[in-house]
Amino acid sequence: MKIGMLTSGGDCQGLNAALRGVAKALYQEFGTAVTIYGIRDGYRGLIEGDYHPMEPQDFSDILTRGGTILGTSRQPFKTMQQAEENEATKLEKMLDTCRRARFDCLVILGGNGTHKTANLLSEHGIPVVTLPKTIDNDLWGTQVTFGFQSAMNIAVEVIDSIHSTAFSHSRVFIVEIMGHKAGWLTLHAGIASGADVIVIPEIPYDARAIAAAIQQRARGGKRFSIVAVAEGAISREEAAMSKKDFKAARAAMPYPSISYRLADELQKITSQEIRVTIPGHFQRGGAPCAADRLLCTRLGVAAAELIREGKFGNMVAVQNDRIVPVPLKEVAGRLKTVPVDGELVRAARELGLCMGD
Amino acid sequence: MKIGMLTSGGDCQGLNAALRGVAKALYQEFGTAVTIYGIRDGYRGLIEGDYHPMEPQDFSDILTRGGTILGTSRQPFKTMQQAEENEATKLEKMLDTCRRARFDCLVILGGNGTHKTANLLSEHGIPVVTLPKTIDNDLWGTQVTFGFQSAMNIAVEVIDSIHSTAFSHSRVFIVEIMGHKAGWLTLHAGIASGADVIVIPEIPYDARAIAAAIQQRARGGKRFSIVAVAEGAISREEAAMSKKDFKAARAAMPYPSISYRLADELQKITSQEIRVTIPGHFQRGGAPCAADRLLCTRLGVAAAELIREGKFGNMVAVQNDRIVPVPLKEVAGRLKTVPVDGELVRAARELGLCMGD
Amino acid sequence: MKIGMLTSGGDCQGLNAALRGVAKALYQEFGTAVTIYGIRDGYRGLIEGDYHPMEPQDFSDILTRGGTILGTSRQPFKTMQQAEENEATKLEKMLDTCRRARFDCLVILGGNGTHKTANLLSEHGIPVVTLPKTIDNDLWGTQVTFGFQSAMNIAVEVIDSIHSTAFSHSRVFIVEIMGHKAGWLTLHAGIASGADVIVIPEIPYDARAIAAAIQQRARGGKRFSIVAVAEGAISREEAAMSKKDFKAARAAMPYPSISYRLADELQKITSQEIRVTIPGHFQRGGAPCAADRLLCTRLGVAAAELIREGKFGNMVAVQNDRIVPVPLKEVAGRLKTVPVDGELVRAARELGLCMGD
Amino acid sequence: MKIGMLTSGGDCQGLNAALRGVAKALYQEFGTAVTIYGIRDGYRGLIEGDYHPMEPQDFSDILTRGGTILGTSRQPFKTMQQAEENEATKLEKMLDTCRRARFDCLVILGGNGTHKTANLLSEHGIPVVTLPKTIDNDLWGTQVTFGFQSAMNIAVEVIDSIHSTAFSHSRVFIVEIMGHKAGWLTLHAGIASGADVIVIPEIPYDARAIAAAIQQRARGGKRFSIVAVAEGAISREEAAMSKKDFKAARAAMPYPSISYRLADELQKITSQEIRVTIPGHFQRGGAPCAADRLLCTRLGVAAAELIREGKFGNMVAVQNDRIVPVPLKEVAGRLKTVPVDGELVRAARELGLCMGD
Repeated sequence: MKIGMLTSGGDCQGLNAALRGVAKALYQEFGTAVTIYGIRDGYRGLIEGDYHPMEPQDFSDILTRGGTILGTSRQPFKTMQQAEENEATKLEKMLDTCRRARFDCLVILGGNGTHKTANLLSEHGIPVVTLPKTIDNDLWGTQVTFGFQSAMNIAVEVIDSIHSTAFSHSRVFIVEIMGHKAGWLTLHAGIASGADVIVIPEIPYDARAIAAAIQQRARGGKRFSIVAVAEGAISREEAAMSKKDFKAARAAMPYPSISYRLADELQKITSQEIRVTIPGHFQRGGAPCAADRLLCTRLGVAAAELIREGKFGNMVAVQNDRIVPVPLKEVAGRLKTVPVDGELVRAARELGLCMGD
Repeated sequence: MKIGMLTSGGDCQGLNAALRGVAKALYQEFGTAVTIYGIRDGYRGLIEGDYHPMEPQDFSDILTRGGTILGTSRQPFKTMQQAEENEATKLEKMLDTCRRARFDCLVILGGNGTHKTANLLSEHGIPVVTLPKTIDNDLWGTQVTFGFQSAMNIAVEVIDSIHSTAFSHSRVFIVEIMGHKAGWLTLHAGIASGADVIVIPEIPYDARAIAAAIQQRARGGKRFSIVAVAEGAISREEAAMSKKDFKAARAAMPYPSISYRLADELQKITSQEIRVTIPGHFQRGGAPCAADRLLCTRLGVAAAELIREGKFGNMVAVQNDRIVPVPLKEVAGRLKTVPVDGELVRAARELGLCMGD
Repeated sequence: MKIGMLTSGGDCQGLNAALRGVAKALYQEFGTAVTIYGIRDGYRGLIEGDYHPMEPQDFSDILTRGGTILGTSRQPFKTMQQAEENEATKLEKMLDTCRRARFDCLVILGGNGTHKTANLLSEHGIPVVTLPKTIDNDLWGTQVTFGFQSAMNIAVEVIDSIHSTAFSHSRVFIVEIMGHKAGWLTLHAGIASGADVIVIPEIPYDARAIAAAIQQRARGGKRFSIVAVAEGAISREEAAMSKKDFKAARAAMPYPSISYRLADELQKITSQEIRVTIPGHFQRGGAPCAADRLLCTRLGVAAAELIREGKFGNMVAVQNDRIVPVPLKEVAGRLKTVPVDGELVRAARELGLCMGD
Repeated sequence: MKIGMLTSGGDCQGLNAALRGVAKALYQEFGTAVTIYGIRDGYRGLIEGDYHPMEPQDFSDILTRGGTILGTSRQPFKTMQQAEENEATKLEKMLDTCRRARFDCLVILGGNGTHKTANLLSEHGIPVVTLPKTIDNDLWGTQVTFGFQSAMNIAVEVIDSIHSTAFSHSRVFIVEIMGHKAGWLTLHAGIASGADVIVIPEIPYDARAIAAAIQQRARGGKRFSIVAVAEGAISREEAAMSKKDFKAARAAMPYPSISYRLADELQKITSQEIRVTIPGHFQRGGAPCAADRLLCTRLGVAAAELIREGKFGNMVAVQNDRIVPVPLKEVAGRLKTVPVDGELVRAARELGLCMGD
């Protein structure tokens, strides 16, 4: 039995833990009858036929290790050396690699972009099993993705730290949290760290409403405030724009990121000292937290079970605290965003937090 | 509106975060119309009428603080000064305090023992809402209790640390994890930390099976092993005993805890150097992890909602990642133990871990 | 006995631990005979007469707390509301407050700017004792300042985390570490985290040299590199400029910070993907590390001893692992920078690290 | 050039970081002209000739790894398989291995026991350079040993955690910290964590004095206390005994460790609930802290310098914040204990802490 494995898209915590889970379960079940091939740098390696056989000891001591031992790369149709090739050719090359390598299954770890391609491969007859990786938690079909909880811990740690400085200097701090399309990370980390304002892409913000919340705190004697902002936050005005106008407006925006624009807007209204902190890639690196190590291991074992049972074309997912298979065609191309009237947003409002609107 | 709050049983991470969640949501909803009374040291304070009004600022800056600002005590019918009193008198005194204080609701945070009493109070007409607190995660009706995830992080941190020493010295290490009746903490932490053997109360252990697993690893070149043992672990022989015989056997056991006995048993069979580490109370102290801070806040808000809606006699619980009320009478006196053929135990076995049997 | 205490300048870890150390030692020595006055927001409170008596319990439970319970503000001659006032008037107001308050000693916690003013007050007859606070470690007269070790831990944690992403994506990462004039933090954190290139203000950098180091690693099969850059880094060209020209050049620099300029320079030479991460204020917030808690406590006790013995006009400092007094006039206005041929820089070079030149 | 390296004695944080430091500096200086041989399991490997050539990549990615990649074992004259051999034979075998292997230098990382043997080898003509490893910080000739600061962090983390439980339950907690002969770890961690009582081997304790301190706190409204006790603590009565009587008394002591005896003594006097927590091996495992990673790297580079300069027979040490060589014959057999009237003990007393006497 030959299994190919690849990790694709932005790296995050738990990739190695998940690879180890799949591998340990396969070796335990099939022993020397299985050979695992590591495909280098995500789909790039699949396109270029860059893969190599791995040994059981390659998966030792990687449970806690950040990043991915296989390497990764961004979208397959953007970052390759052969950028001139058209998409059809690339897909053909990937299919070709799978056939020549005679993979009995291709195990793919990745997020939204990755799953589109994984589904494409599956539709072209490749036996595929996937694992849901993203700190954004925006993958359809699973309650939680791996990486998310580790990233939340870091975001919370950063906001906690900023808290003491904000208090000591009586300042407003904006902390920009990762998440372009979905506000899960910002919402979870914001509530968990006691932020005063939470701005997520799903709820277009009104700078005046945020300023009012800050000023109300100041009137109550709290001269500092913490504003947690998702990097994908948009204003009400922007939400009303056409896609084209929005792109143009953003291209002309004279700020390195949305947080700086919001800082400017708030400073004008409140006259308070406002600072911006952007933890950036720090949120996705380093060792996975205990919860992610457990989750990755469970997902890995479940993926091995699907392989054993020949149930290809599925992503292993978490639903109702159980690990279940979800068809790739249901996952691909769909985004799981924060329900704006869901329990979590309501809870934030009931605590008196400003949700930016 | 008058709300009494108490925390009972062994302290754990998140008690203050949960108190803060309830309080912030109540103050947000009712403003100055609500007065929260802090009852000191759990049921002791309720029996003795030891409570005092609190202010909103008492709940500031406690989100990350370990322990409980209200103080706590163990089972109401054991640790009080008035130990001579019979139970009926104590219950009467508690009811009396509630009536005299005219609490519109009594908010109780605690674990299994606590919930028995909470249900008793509820059955006697006291409006009660409870929150599920225990690092053991053994409370019926909720997928997860607060404290559990924080304790898991610590248990994993300890096992991680022991790992490097075990490897360097080619030793077998037994790490004793909290959990008298349920193995949740040991099982989760054991898998998340890559332990080689996991022994939980739900699966009586056979020292020869564990020794065989250790010896098999040694034959494979891994001269060290990590054995995660729940403090409530029992042997197969003990599992076959009557309750009376078991108690007698344990009373005569010449070891400070089960881990030392197991160490002795394993040493005799394997002749390997075996050490025991017991993190003990370290597992339940200190700041709650981000996940627990989020969970406690959500549970607190949900408890405030139940109060607002007059839905007393319920515990706020997690089911299918949602916060739901569960009737106290369903929770009281029931234990949630690890299903021995559940997904997690199966996953451990599929990874090649020894479950002690 | 009346003691005034203030914390000035950017906040950092350990301020509260140091305040607690002074207070506990004073209360232990003088009991109820001493009253400590907390001066709010640094020199602003001294100028405006904004101070209040504190109680022993105010210093309980603050050993691990980030920030400062007294509040702080930047340079006294910049951030006050009364910005129109000239400096002489401000100094006069500070002296006036001290006299009216009849402080037997003014305890001042701060960094370089703070010490200039502290020395000025001392020269005008105010009994002053100071403690060396700064994450930059650039205060003359002491081997180490408090805050430095905590900030180093955070900088190292960030670089560690970035490491896994750099490896997984085969990228070059620039991590910008705090330190405008001195490279202590960048140098210590860079070596401790295994950075490949370290750029500090004391050693003007040559982008070609850094690019060469990155390319040499790539040739050796390591397609990723970590570049730790102090925020005060300057290029060789800049180092050769007059102060006036340098200021003009920087004012015209089309980058939000030096790291982005360096990224651009390196990208042009190496054609590698280069990313920038700036942990920013995260480095100075949150709980002090154990070493800082110990240091702050020792410094606090030593400050109380100086007060008892009437040895005013001194900063408590660390020399040869001992706590010693250093006259303020020796400290004020002097910067402790990294010796470019000192042991640490030599060690970095002997390890094969590129120091940017 | 052939260099043998071994790590001996109990493992601790930073061993791999130090090995890496030596290796990187040697490879940087000598390139392919140097071969490093890893000797397995400390002196056992030297006696049995169990060593193997290593490659530069063996030292990659180990900076943060706990334990030792070379393995270690306890005292060479106790734990070997050939326990029947007399000491002379063992020494001869070690000398023999060095000669046959033609090591140009033997690099030894270890603590007190290790340094006795290292000095013996040096006196027999073997070119030796050593690095000071021990979490106990009790090695003569250096201000600090590596491992010590990492262990302090963990001890402080444990005491911090216990603090919240002690407060919540109004209990007295004894935390037993490593250190048989020297109290450095207990003293540093105790002050850094705000312990109320600190008991170290250098100051024999009087249970009545400790009880009095606890009772005084209780009278002041603080019903909880934290007692940090070194595992090598002794009572006044024991301090007055002959060595023989002491050994006999301890052999007959019906407690698993000194902390339990002290708990019993305190309970009898104070009638308070007293609990014991023993973090044990957790204190010496896992990743080194940033300070230790820096220290190990500096020590490693300095060791490589000594090798280059042929300055054998020395330990690299820290004095006055500089790395200096110290002759092995000055180090061997001497213990660095806490000066009972030194600054740190005085500081503890001036803070009002009870030092057990």
